Amino acid sequence: MPALGLDHSQVSVVAPVPAEEREDHFAVRHGVRCAGVHLIVDVHGGHGLNDIDLIEATLRRCVDAAQATLLHIHVHHFQPNGVSGVAVLAESHISIHTWPDIGYAALDLFMCGKADPDACIPVLRQAFKAKRIEVQELLRGQSA
Amino acid sequence: MPALGLDHSQVSVVAPVPAEEREDHFAVRHGVRCAGVHLIVDVHGGHGLNDIDLIEATLRRCVDAAQATLLHIHVHHFQPNGVSGVAVLAESHISIHTWPDIGYAALDLFMCGKADPDACIPVLRQAFKAKRIEVQELLRGQSA
Repeated sequence: MPALGLDHSQVSVVAPVPAEEREDHFAVRHGVRCAGVHLIVDVHGGHGLNDIDLIEATLRRCVDAAQATLLHIHVHHFQPNGVSGVAVLAESHISIHTWPDIGYAALDLFMCGKADPDACIPVLRQAFKAKRIEVQELLRGQSA
Repeated sequence: MPALGLDHSQVSVVAPVPAEEREDHFAVRHGVRCAGVHLIVDVHGGHGLNDIDLIEATLRRCVDAAQATLLHIHVHHFQPNGVSGVAVLAESHISIHTWPDIGYAALDLFMCGKADPDACIPVLRQAFKAKRIEVQELLRGQSA
C-alpha cells in the first residue's frame, strides 16, 4: 500500500446468483433495438466525491434502482484525492471517476436487457447533492 | 458457480505499484483541457468475442499500449455466450462487453493524464480481426 495509507481499494466479489445468464442481452429504447443503452453522465457541483464509502454505497444503490444484478464491485481511492469505482453487472457496468477538488464526477452507465439506467440519475443527484447533472444517451450496437 | 461451469469470472487484484497517485489527473486533447478522454468504441464483424482468455489478454495489451497503469481487472463469461471485462486503471478504466453471435463488442476507454487511449485501437483491431471499428471521442469534464 502507498505511503500514507490513504490510497486503498475495496473489492467485493459478489456471490454468484442462480441466473447469471443475460436472458435478453439486447435492449429496446424508444422502439430502437440495440445491444445496450449507454448513459454518459457528468456530475457538476457535487459533494462527497472523495468519500469511497459513499461512492461504493451509491453504486450499489444505483444497481438496485436500475433493477440490475451486481456481479462484482471495485472502488479505489487515489492520493491526494479522487475515487474510481466500477460495478460489473449481468447487464453490463457502471463506472465513476471523481475529481473532488472541482466537484466533478464522470460516470457511465451501460445496461442491456430490462435494466433501467435512467433510474440511477435521481440516486446520483441525491447522493452527491449535485448542482447539475448532464446525461448523454448512446444506443450502442444499433446496426449490429 | 452456475450449472454447466461455463459461466465464470476471473479477477486479478494487481499488486499495488509505488505510485498510484493520479500525477496529472487531467488530460489535454487537441489543446482542450478536460478531466479525461473517453473513447466509445464499437467493434463490428469481430472474432474471438466469446474467448474470455483472449479478452483478458487483449485488455492487458491495451493497458500496455496506452502506457497506463493497471490496478484491477475483472472478466466474466456469460451463458450461453458473451463476455464482460473491466480494467480499472490509475488513469480511469477500459470496459468491454461482447455479443459473439453477432460479432459485436462495445468498449469504452476512459483515460486521464498522459495515457493514450488511441493506442488501443490497433490492438483491438488485430485481436478481434474486426471488419470495422467505430470510435467516438468524448472530452469529459471540459467545463469542470
